[in-house]
Amino acid sequence: MSYTDLVNKEKAIKLLLSRGVTIRDIADITLTIQKQYYENLTIEYCEENVIKVLEKTEVQNVIFTGIALDILCEKGLLPEPLNELVASDYPLYGVDEILALGIVNVYGSIGLTNFGYVDKEKVGIINKVDKIGKRTDKCMTFLDDIIGAIAASSASRIAHNRIKE
Amino acid sequence: MSYTDLVNKEKAIKLLLSRGVTIRDIADITLTIQKQYYENLTIEYCEENVIKVLEKTEVQNVIFTGIALDILCEKGLLPEPLNELVASDYPLYGVDEILALGIVNVYGSIGLTNFGYVDKEKVGIINKVDKIGKRTDKCMTFLDDIIGAIAASSASRIAHNRIKE
Amino acid sequence: MSYTDLVNKEKAIKLLLSRGVTIRDIADITLTIQKQYYENLTIEYCEENVIKVLEKTEVQNVIFTGIALDILCEKGLLPEPLNELVASDYPLYGVDEILALGIVNVYGSIGLTNFGYVDKEKVGIINKVDKIGKRTDKCMTFLDDIIGAIAASSASRIAHNRIKE
Amino acid sequence: MSYTDLVNKEKAIKLLLSRGVTIRDIADITLTIQKQYYENLTIEYCEENVIKVLEKTEVQNVIFTGIALDILCEKGLLPEPLNELVASDYPLYGVDEILALGIVNVYGSIGLTNFGYVDKEKVGIINKVDKIGKRTDKCMTFLDDIIGAIAASSASRIAHNRIKE
Repeated sequence: MSYTDLVNKEKAIKLLLSRGVTIRDIADITLTIQKQYYENLTIEYCEENVIKVLEKTEVQNVIFTGIALDILCEKGLLPEPLNELVASDYPLYGVDEILALGIVNVYGSIGLTNFGYVDKEKVGIINKVDKIGKRTDKCMTFLDDIIGAIAASSASRIAHNRIKE
Repeated sequence: MSYTDLVNKEKAIKLLLSRGVTIRDIADITLTIQKQYYENLTIEYCEENVIKVLEKTEVQNVIFTGIALDILCEKGLLPEPLNELVASDYPLYGVDEILALGIVNVYGSIGLTNFGYVDKEKVGIINKVDKIGKRTDKCMTFLDDIIGAIAASSASRIAHNRIKE
Repeated sequence: MSYTDLVNKEKAIKLLLSRGVTIRDIADITLTIQKQYYENLTIEYCEENVIKVLEKTEVQNVIFTGIALDILCEKGLLPEPLNELVASDYPLYGVDEILALGIVNVYGSIGLTNFGYVDKEKVGIINKVDKIGKRTDKCMTFLDDIIGAIAASSASRIAHNRIKE
Repeated sequence: MSYTDLVNKEKAIKLLLSRGVTIRDIADITLTIQKQYYENLTIEYCEENVIKVLEKTEVQNVIFTGIALDILCEKGLLPEPLNELVASDYPLYGVDEILALGIVNVYGSIGLTNFGYVDKEKVGIINKVDKIGKRTDKCMTFLDDIIGAIAASSASRIAHNRIKE
């Protein structure tokens, strides 16, 4: 891993934390969707894999961009009609899913199914984030998809490592 | 719609039918995932939207390609190691999801979540197809993802039309 | 087309214009890449197809989002390290290509090749936009990919209509 | 790298060779598109990166699937209308580009531009493969996109390693 990736990994982790999301929260989602396939899968191993996903340049850049859009939206700094589209998490907006796909694809298309599932079922922290987005002035339009994409990518990473052992 | 698309739509419908899947089966999945959002959504309206999705060139070509691979696999006509990868529905194969993405993307990335959900939860006919693939000599590796992708695309199409009315 | 799509099409056209890009500029790129295949292809027909592409919700939302990021970057309003990544058009940033893919995919994957080509060769207005981005305080990181994606999608649209006639 | 990936890498290399394509041929394309950015870039370093790309499960599976479709098409073993679509390299077929995208995405979306460029310009071996597909009974519909995708991914891999040094 390069120095830039190392520095940006720390920045990405801090940024997620500032929005109320820990590595453990994301690892919990990964554990939920993978524990049925791998006996003895631990939360610690899931955390390790979440951290490995966060070392990827593509993942870091999507996190920086998506969360910046959420924060700028809260401050009303996005030009219209964009601010309203993002603030209302408009169902046809779609750019949040496009960005999430940019994360999932790095670990191959096998992550698509898990991403869709955790996003739709609002597994773990995604449910909490979703409610904050709907009930408060906070904007979580990009964050919930980003969390789902990281958790699904971590699950793909575990599948790649486990199946081939 | 062009004459070629019209002819190929009929061929795609017949091909799905020859693998045990009707328009109604796919529309049932669409209804299941969309009825919570649209009161009075009918199975007939879902069927109309499934048919519209099947008129798209991209969708037809993925259906022709994916089902051909399933059938050739059943006959043992794919060169190894491909025949074994497809026959076993190997979790890291991934090309079935790549093809499904080729369908879903035509209706924008908002279909990704529904695709992942119905695929993971094996909604409706997907469950039946999955069991046939696992318990008989039939190969359904591409078919289940194709069904999920068409159902999710139909749901996206309905969302596009309904929200803007 | 819905009322929202109609209104947002006009907003997207105005936004592109405010960044120095006309429908004609984009149509010129489409004409350049397609004229070798279709005799008698006119700039007017290319313009019609560019406008049709701009009627799509997915395309409009990518335009609103990408150009907002360019403008916010110029004002230094993006949080670091994002502002620096976007301002420098950092080669590994990648989110600009992810967004462009969200446009291209709507017209099927046949647009991928044209998108890559016009982006790399900096055909027409893309070259001008690229130079403004590099030589002035203006940020054009997302705009050049958006233009390339719209031009490539228009080319795909023409191919779909012409081949099947 | 797992034992399966190692074995399948060798199988993928042999399969490409049986279709007339060497590691060196692909590395030549990578060198052509990257030498302007990196002084002292050697063909040997490009070859190393092509081999690294071929170690990825996703890449191997796309190669196995795409080349199998080319070969089955030559033998007339694909059911119609698929055999005709693939044999004629029908411009709206699109599944060849979808599969290529499955390769390119693994190294992030920065590879999209290079993929489109080498595919359109038919750089190096792609031109030769394209002519064989058009002038002989051989089918090269998937192979040319696969070569372009591997070369573009190798270029992305080099960019990731070089920029961060």
